Amino acid sequence: MGEEYGTESGDGEYLWVLDPIDGTRAFLTGRPLFGTLIGLMHRGKPVLGIIDQPVTGERWIGVSGEATRFTSPMGGMAACRPCPSLATAELSCTSPEIFDEAGMARFERVRKAARRVTWGGDCYAYGLVALGLVDAVVEGTLKPWDWAALVPVIEGAGGRMTDWLGQPLTLESKGEVLAVGDAALLPEITALLA
Amino acid sequence: MGEEYGTESGDGEYLWVLDPIDGTRAFLTGRPLFGTLIGLMHRGKPVLGIIDQPVTGERWIGVSGEATRFTSPMGGMAACRPCPSLATAELSCTSPEIFDEAGMARFERVRKAARRVTWGGDCYAYGLVALGLVDAVVEGTLKPWDWAALVPVIEGAGGRMTDWLGQPLTLESKGEVLAVGDAALLPEITALLA
Repeated sequence: MGEEYGTESGDGEYLWVLDPIDGTRAFLTGRPLFGTLIGLMHRGKPVLGIIDQPVTGERWIGVSGEATRFTSPMGGMAACRPCPSLATAELSCTSPEIFDEAGMARFERVRKAARRVTWGGDCYAYGLVALGLVDAVVEGTLKPWDWAALVPVIEGAGGRMTDWLGQPLTLESKGEVLAVGDAALLPEITALLA
Repeated sequence: MGEEYGTESGDGEYLWVLDPIDGTRAFLTGRPLFGTLIGLMHRGKPVLGIIDQPVTGERWIGVSGEATRFTSPMGGMAACRPCPSLATAELSCTSPEIFDEAGMARFERVRKAARRVTWGGDCYAYGLVALGLVDAVVEGTLKPWDWAALVPVIEGAGGRMTDWLGQPLTLESKGEVLAVGDAALLPEITALLA
Protein backbone atom coordinates (compact mmCIF):
# COMPACT_ATOMS: atom_id res chain seq x y z
CA MET A 1 0.00 0.00 0.00
CA GLY A 2 1.36 3.44 -0.83
CA GLU A 3 0.47 6.98 -1.77
CA GLU A 4 1.62 6.39 -5.34
CA TYR A 5 0.52 2.75 -5.59
CA GLY A 6 -2.90 2.30 -4.04
CA THR A 7 -3.34 -1.09 -2.39
CA GLU A 8 -2.05 -4.01 -4.42
CA SER A 9 -3.26 -6.76 -2.15
CA GLY A 10 -4.63 -6.00 1.27
CA ASP A 11 -5.42 -9.54 2.34
CA GLY A 12 -1.98 -10.90 3.20
CA GLU A 13 -0.73 -11.40 6.74
CA TYR A 14 1.93 -8.76 6.18
CA LEU A 15 1.41 -5.40 4.46
CA TRP A 16 4.14 -3.00 3.34
CA VAL A 17 3.02 0.61 3.61
CA LEU A 18 5.19 3.02 1.63
CA ASP A 19 5.48 6.75 1.14
CA PRO A 20 8.47 7.57 -1.10
CA ILE A 21 8.22 11.28 -0.23
CA ASP A 22 6.26 12.19 2.86
CA GLY A 23 6.04 15.98 3.02
CA THR A 24 5.62 16.72 -0.67
CA ARG A 25 5.15 20.42 0.04
CA ALA A 26 8.35 20.55 2.12
CA PHE A 27 10.20 18.65 -0.62
CA LEU A 28 8.95 20.94 -3.39
CA THR A 29 9.87 24.07 -1.49
CA GLY A 30 13.31 22.84 -0.42
CA ARG A 31 12.88 22.18 3.30
CA PRO A 32 14.88 19.25 4.70
CA LEU A 33 11.86 17.99 6.68
CA PHE A 34 10.42 15.55 4.15
CA GLY A 35 11.27 11.87 4.37
CA THR A 36 11.00 8.46 2.86
CA LEU A 37 8.72 6.24 4.94
CA ILE A 38 8.81 2.45 4.91
CA GLY A 39 6.34 0.69 7.15
CA LEU A 40 5.38 -2.93 7.65
CA MET A 41 2.13 -4.03 9.25
CA HIS A 42 1.40 -7.51 10.57
CA ARG A 43 -2.30 -8.33 10.82
CA GLY A 44 -3.08 -4.63 10.83
CA LYS A 45 -0.53 -3.67 13.47
CA PRO A 46 2.59 -1.62 12.53
CA VAL A 47 5.65 -3.73 13.41
CA LEU A 48 8.48 -1.99 11.53
CA GLY A 49 9.05 1.59 10.49
CA ILE A 50 11.83 3.58 8.85
CA ILE A 51 12.07 7.36 8.46
CA ASP A 52 14.91 8.49 6.19
CA GLN A 53 15.87 12.15 5.70
CA PRO A 54 18.40 12.30 2.86
CA VAL A 55 19.51 15.94 3.28
CA THR A 56 20.53 15.74 6.93
CA GLY A 57 21.46 12.06 6.61
CA GLU A 58 19.27 11.08 9.55
CA ARG A 59 17.53 7.71 9.74
CA TRP A 60 15.19 6.29 12.36
CA ILE A 61 14.48 2.52 12.46
CA GLY A 62 11.73 1.25 14.71
CA VAL A 63 10.94 -2.43 15.28
CA SER A 64 8.08 -3.53 17.47
CA GLY A 65 9.38 -4.56 20.89
CA GLU A 66 12.86 -3.12 20.33
CA ALA A 67 14.53 0.21 21.10
CA THR A 68 14.41 2.61 18.14
CA ARG A 69 17.75 3.01 16.36
CA PHE A 70 18.81 6.45 15.13
CA THR A 71 21.77 7.22 12.90
CA SER A 72 22.95 10.71 12.00
CA PRO A 73 26.22 12.37 10.94
CA MET A 74 25.72 14.54 14.04
CA GLY A 75 25.28 11.62 16.44
CA GLY A 76 22.45 11.48 18.93
CA MET A 77 20.18 8.67 20.00
CA ALA A 78 16.47 7.97 20.06
CA ALA A 79 14.74 8.43 23.42
CA CYS A 80 11.58 10.36 24.17
CA ARG A 81 11.79 12.76 27.10
CA PRO A 82 9.53 12.99 30.15
CA CYS A 83 6.84 15.67 29.90
CA PRO A 84 3.86 14.87 32.11
CA SER A 85 2.03 18.20 31.62
CA LEU A 86 0.76 19.79 28.42
CA ALA A 87 1.51 23.25 29.85
CA THR A 88 5.23 22.51 29.48
CA ALA A 89 4.94 20.58 26.20
CA GLU A 90 6.42 21.52 22.83
CA LEU A 91 3.60 20.79 20.39
CA SER A 92 4.11 20.36 16.65
CA CYS A 93 1.78 20.33 13.67
CA THR A 94 2.49 20.45 9.95
CA SER A 95 -0.13 23.04 9.01
CA PRO A 96 -3.48 24.48 10.14
CA GLU A 97 -4.77 23.27 6.76
CA ILE A 98 -4.24 19.64 7.85
CA PHE A 99 -7.53 19.68 9.80
CA ASP A 100 -11.14 19.71 8.73
CA GLU A 101 -13.21 22.44 10.38
CA ALA A 102 -14.35 20.41 13.38
CA GLY A 103 -10.85 19.04 13.81
CA MET A 104 -9.35 22.53 13.83
CA ALA A 105 -11.59 23.62 16.72
CA ARG A 106 -10.56 20.56 18.71
CA PHE A 107 -6.88 21.08 17.89
CA GLU A 108 -7.12 24.71 19.01
CA ARG A 109 -7.97 23.57 22.54
CA VAL A 110 -4.77 21.53 22.64
CA ARG A 111 -2.70 24.33 21.12
CA LYS A 112 -3.88 26.86 23.70
CA ALA A 113 -3.10 24.50 26.58
CA ALA A 114 0.37 23.65 25.27
CA ARG A 115 3.49 25.63 26.05
CA ARG A 116 4.08 26.41 22.39
CA VAL A 117 3.36 25.11 18.90
CA THR A 118 5.85 24.84 16.05
CA TRP A 119 4.38 24.61 12.56
CA GLY A 120 5.72 22.48 9.72
CA GLY A 121 7.50 19.21 9.99
CA ASP A 122 5.61 16.33 8.34
CA CYS A 123 7.22 13.00 9.29
CA TYR A 124 10.29 14.79 10.65
CA ALA A 125 8.28 16.13 13.59
CA TYR A 126 7.56 12.55 14.69
CA GLY A 127 11.28 11.81 14.45
CA LEU A 128 11.84 14.77 16.78
CA VAL A 129 9.41 13.26 19.31
CA ALA A 130 11.53 10.10 19.17
CA LEU A 131 14.64 12.23 19.86
CA GLY A 132 13.12 13.95 22.89
CA LEU A 133 13.00 17.38 21.22
CA VAL A 134 9.24 17.62 20.68
CA ASP A 135 6.63 16.38 23.16
CA ALA A 136 3.48 16.00 21.10
CA VAL A 137 2.21 16.02 17.52
CA VAL A 138 -1.51 16.32 16.77
CA GLU A 139 -2.65 16.03 13.16
CA GLY A 140 -5.73 15.17 11.15
CA THR A 141 -6.60 13.80 7.71
CA LEU A 142 -3.55 11.50 7.58
CA LYS A 143 -3.49 8.36 5.47
CA PRO A 144 -2.01 5.00 6.61
CA TRP A 145 1.16 5.65 4.57
CA ASP A 146 1.62 8.90 6.50
CA TRP A 147 1.62 7.22 9.93
CA ALA A 148 2.28 3.44 9.64
CA ALA A 149 6.08 3.77 9.65
CA LEU A 150 5.99 6.29 12.50
CA VAL A 151 4.31 4.08 15.11
CA PRO A 152 7.23 1.65 15.74
CA VAL A 153 9.70 4.59 15.70
CA ILE A 154 7.77 6.53 18.36
CA GLU A 155 6.88 3.55 20.53
CA GLY A 156 10.38 2.07 20.39
CA ALA A 157 11.68 5.40 21.73
CA GLY A 158 9.31 5.25 24.69
CA GLY A 159 6.41 7.30 23.30
CA ARG A 160 2.87 6.49 22.27
CA MET A 161 1.03 6.93 19.01
CA THR A 162 -2.76 6.64 18.89
CA ASP A 163 -5.87 8.16 17.35
CA TRP A 164 -7.51 11.16 19.00
CA LEU A 165 -9.43 8.87 21.35
CA GLY A 166 -6.22 7.27 22.57
CA GLN A 167 -6.98 4.05 20.67
CA PRO A 168 -4.42 2.15 18.53
CA LEU A 169 -4.23 3.25 14.90
CA THR A 170 -5.61 0.75 12.40
CA LEU A 171 -6.30 0.77 8.67
CA GLU A 172 -9.87 1.74 9.61
CA SER A 173 -8.74 4.81 11.64
CA LYS A 174 -10.05 8.18 10.50
CA GLY A 175 -6.59 9.67 10.13
CA GLU A 176 -6.72 11.71 13.33
CA VAL A 177 -3.32 11.02 14.80
CA LEU A 178 -1.70 11.83 18.12
CA ALA A 179 1.92 11.16 19.08
CA VAL A 180 3.34 11.83 22.53
CA GLY A 181 6.80 11.33 23.95
CA ASP A 182 5.41 10.77 27.44
CA ALA A 183 2.33 8.53 27.78
CA ALA A 184 1.30 10.64 30.80
CA LEU A 185 0.22 13.35 28.30
CA LEU A 186 -2.40 11.08 26.70
CA PRO A 187 -5.34 11.61 29.10
CA GLU A 188 -4.96 15.42 29.05
CA ILE A 189 -4.72 15.67 25.26
CA THR A 190 -7.45 13.13 24.45
CA ALA A 191 -9.80 14.93 26.86
CA LEU A 192 -9.19 18.23 25.02
CA LEU A 193 -9.67 16.55 21.63
CA ALA A 194 -12.91 14.82 22.67
CA MET B 1 22.68 45.74 17.24
CA GLY B 2 21.44 42.28 18.03
CA GLU B 3 18.72 40.26 19.67
CA GLU B 4 21.01 39.40 22.59
CA TYR B 5 22.91 42.70 22.66
CA GLY B 6 20.52 45.59 22.26
CA THR B 7 22.06 48.53 20.38
CA GLU B 8 25.57 49.42 21.46
CA SER B 9 25.96 52.51 19.34
CA GLY B 10 23.45 53.39 16.68
CA ASP B 11 25.05 56.58 15.42
CA GLY B 12 27.97 55.26 13.35
CA GLU B 13 27.98 55.22 9.56
CA TYR B 14 28.03 51.41 9.63
CA LEU B 15 25.92 49.18 11.86
CA TRP B 16 26.37 45.45 12.37
CA VAL B 17 23.06 43.70 12.96
CA LEU B 18 23.40 40.22 14.45
CA ASP B 19 21.17 37.32 15.35
CA PRO B 20 23.24 34.37 16.59
CA ILE B 21 20.23 32.04 16.37
CA ASP B 22 17.34 33.17 14.22
CA GLY B 23 14.51 30.67 14.66
CA THR B 24 14.92 29.93 18.36
CA ARG B 25 11.82 27.75 18.35
CA ALA B 26 13.12 25.72 15.38
CA PHE B 27 16.51 25.40 17.10
CA LEU B 28 15.00 24.28 20.41
CA THR B 29 12.81 21.67 18.75
CA GLY B 30 15.55 20.30 16.49
CA ARG B 31 14.52 21.57 13.05
CA PRO B 32 17.40 22.45 10.69
CA LEU B 33 15.69 25.68 9.65
CA PHE B 34 17.28 28.08 12.12
CA GLY B 35 20.30 30.11 11.15
CA THR B 36 22.99 32.51 12.19
CA LEU B 37 22.37 35.94 10.67
CA ILE B 38 25.08 38.55 10.14
CA GLY B 39 23.98 41.83 8.60
CA LEU B 40 25.72 45.11 7.92
CA MET B 41 23.88 48.37 7.33
CA HIS B 42 25.40 51.50 5.83
CA ARG B 43 23.53 54.68 6.68
CA GLY B 44 20.43 52.62 7.45
CA LYS B 45 20.56 50.52 4.28
CA PRO B 46 21.45 46.77 4.43
CA VAL B 47 24.60 46.25 2.33
CA LEU B 48 25.82 42.81 3.43
CA GLY B 49 24.05 39.75 4.72
CA ILE B 50 24.97 36.20 5.64
CA ILE B 51 22.63 33.30 6.44
CA ASP B 52 24.40 30.23 7.82
CA GLN B 53 22.63 26.92 8.47
CA PRO B 54 25.08 24.68 10.34
CA VAL B 55 23.13 21.39 10.09
CA THR B 56 22.75 21.30 6.31
CA GLY B 57 26.02 23.22 5.81
CA GLU B 58 24.34 25.82 3.62
CA ARG B 59 25.49 29.44 3.53
CA TRP B 60 24.14 32.42 1.65
CA ILE B 61 26.26 35.59 1.26
CA GLY B 62 24.64 38.70 -0.15
CA VAL B 63 26.50 41.92 -0.93
CA SER B 64 24.71 44.97 -2.21
CA GLY B 65 25.18 45.26 -5.99
CA GLU B 66 26.60 41.76 -6.37
CA ALA B 67 25.12 38.36 -7.16
CA THR B 68 24.33 36.34 -4.03
CA ARG B 69 26.76 33.51 -3.38
CA PHE B 70 25.47 30.18 -2.10
CA THR B 71 27.55 27.28 -0.85
CA SER B 72 26.19 23.87 0.11
CA PRO B 73 27.48 20.29 0.27
CA MET B 74 24.65 19.52 -2.17
CA GLY B 75 25.60 22.19 -4.69
CA GLY B 76 23.08 24.60 -6.13
CA MET B 77 23.24 28.31 -6.80
CA ALA B 78 21.32 31.39 -5.76
CA ALA B 79 18.80 32.71 -8.29
CA CYS B 80 15.19 33.63 -7.71
CA ARG B 81 12.71 32.20 -10.20
CA PRO B 82 10.12 34.02 -12.28
CA CYS B 83 6.60 33.96 -10.83
CA PRO B 84 4.53 36.89 -12.06
CA SER B 85 1.19 35.74 -10.55
CA LEU B 86 0.30 35.06 -6.93
CA ALA B 87 -2.08 32.30 -8.05
CA THR B 88 0.95 30.18 -8.99
CA ALA B 89 3.16 31.30 -6.09
CA GLU B 90 4.54 29.15 -3.28
CA LEU B 91 4.02 31.30 -0.19
CA SER B 92 5.85 30.76 3.09
CA CYS B 93 5.34 31.99 6.64
CA THR B 94 6.91 30.90 9.91
CA SER B 95 3.72 30.78 11.99
CA PRO B 96 0.19 32.22 12.20
CA GLU B 97 1.29 33.52 15.62
CA ILE B 98 3.80 35.86 13.94
CA PHE B 99 1.03 38.37 13.16
CA ASP B 100 -0.96 40.71 15.32
CA GLU B 101 -4.75 40.44 14.82
CA ALA B 102 -5.03 43.09 12.09
CA GLY B 103 -1.95 41.69 10.37
CA MET B 104 -3.42 38.18 10.35
CA ALA B 105 -6.56 39.35 8.52
CA ARG B 106 -4.41 41.05 5.91
CA PHE B 107 -2.13 38.03 5.56
CA GLU B 108 -5.17 35.78 5.08
CA ARG B 109 -6.06 37.66 1.89
CA VAL B 110 -2.61 36.89 0.49
CA ARG B 111 -2.73 33.27 1.64
CA LYS B 112 -6.07 32.66 -0.05
CA ALA B 113 -4.85 34.16 -3.33
CA ALA B 114 -1.60 32.18 -3.34
CA ARG B 115 -1.24 28.73 -4.78
CA ARG B 116 -0.22 27.26 -1.43
CA VAL B 117 1.35 28.22 1.89
CA THR B 118 4.04 26.30 3.72
CA TRP B 119 4.40 27.00 7.43
CA GLY B 120 7.65 27.20 9.36
CA GLY B 121 10.99 28.31 8.10
CA ASP B 122 12.29 31.44 9.86
CA CYS B 123 15.34 32.81 7.99
CA TYR B 124 15.62 29.59 5.99
CA ALA B 125 12.46 30.43 4.05
CA TYR B 126 14.12 33.61 2.76
CA GLY B 127 17.10 31.52 1.70
CA LEU B 128 14.66 29.35 -0.26
CA VAL B 129 13.34 32.45 -2.06
CA ALA B 130 16.95 33.19 -3.05
CA LEU B 131 17.24 29.62 -4.39
CA GLY B 132 14.11 29.87 -6.52
CA LEU B 133 12.19 27.30 -4.43
CA VAL B 134 9.75 29.67 -2.70
CA ASP B 135 8.15 32.69 -4.36
CA ALA B 136 7.04 34.88 -1.46
CA VAL B 137 7.36 35.25 2.30
CA VAL B 138 4.99 37.52 4.24
CA GLU B 139 5.62 38.04 7.95
CA GLY B 140 4.88 40.51 10.70
CA THR B 141 6.40 41.62 14.02
CA LEU B 142 9.99 41.11 12.85
CA LYS B 143 12.90 43.01 14.38
CA PRO B 144 15.79 44.49 12.38
CA TRP B 145 18.06 41.57 13.34
CA ASP B 146 15.46 39.22 11.84
CA TRP B 147 15.53 40.86 8.42
CA ALA B 148 18.66 43.03 7.94
CA ALA B 149 20.88 40.16 6.76
CA LEU B 150 18.16 38.84 4.46
CA VAL B 151 17.78 41.90 2.24
CA PRO B 152 21.13 41.67 0.39
CA VAL B 153 20.69 37.88 0.04
CA ILE B 154 17.25 38.20 -1.56
CA GLU B 155 18.05 41.23 -3.72
CA GLY B 156 21.38 39.82 -4.91
CA ALA B 157 19.48 36.75 -6.13
CA GLY B 158 17.11 38.90 -8.17
CA GLY B 159 14.26 39.28 -5.66
CA ARG B 160 12.88 42.18 -3.67
CA MET B 161 12.43 42.70 0.04
CA THR B 162 10.23 45.51 1.33
CA ASP B 163 7.67 46.40 3.97
CA TRP B 164 3.98 45.62 3.36
CA LEU B 165 3.59 48.90 1.45
CA GLY B 166 6.38 47.97 -0.94
CA GLN B 167 8.73 50.51 0.66
CA PRO B 168 12.38 49.79 1.57
CA LEU B 169 12.92 48.40 5.07
CA THR B 170 14.57 50.79 7.51
CA LEU B 171 15.31 50.74 11.24
CA GLU B 172 12.03 52.65 11.62
CA SER B 173 9.98 50.00 9.78
CA LYS B 174 7.16 48.35 11.75
CA GLY B 175 8.49 44.85 11.18
CA GLU B 176 5.95 43.95 8.51
CA VAL B 177 8.14 42.26 5.94
CA LEU B 178 7.56 41.01 2.41
CA ALA B 179 10.04 39.10 0.27
CA VAL B 180 9.38 38.09 -3.32
CA GLY B 181 11.51 36.25 -5.83
CA ASP B 182 9.88 38.07 -8.75
CA ALA B 183 9.33 41.84 -8.38
CA ALA B 184 6.24 41.46 -10.59
CA LEU B 185 4.46 39.97 -7.53
CA LEU B 186 4.86 43.17 -5.49
CA PRO B 187 1.84 45.15 -6.74
CA GLU B 188 -0.55 42.21 -6.28
CA ILE B 189 0.65 41.34 -2.78
CA THR B 190 0.91 44.92 -1.48
CA ALA B 191 -2.64 45.60 -2.75
CA LEU B 192 -3.94 42.61 -0.76
CA LEU B 193 -1.98 43.68 2.34
CA ALA B 194 -3.21 47.30 2.16
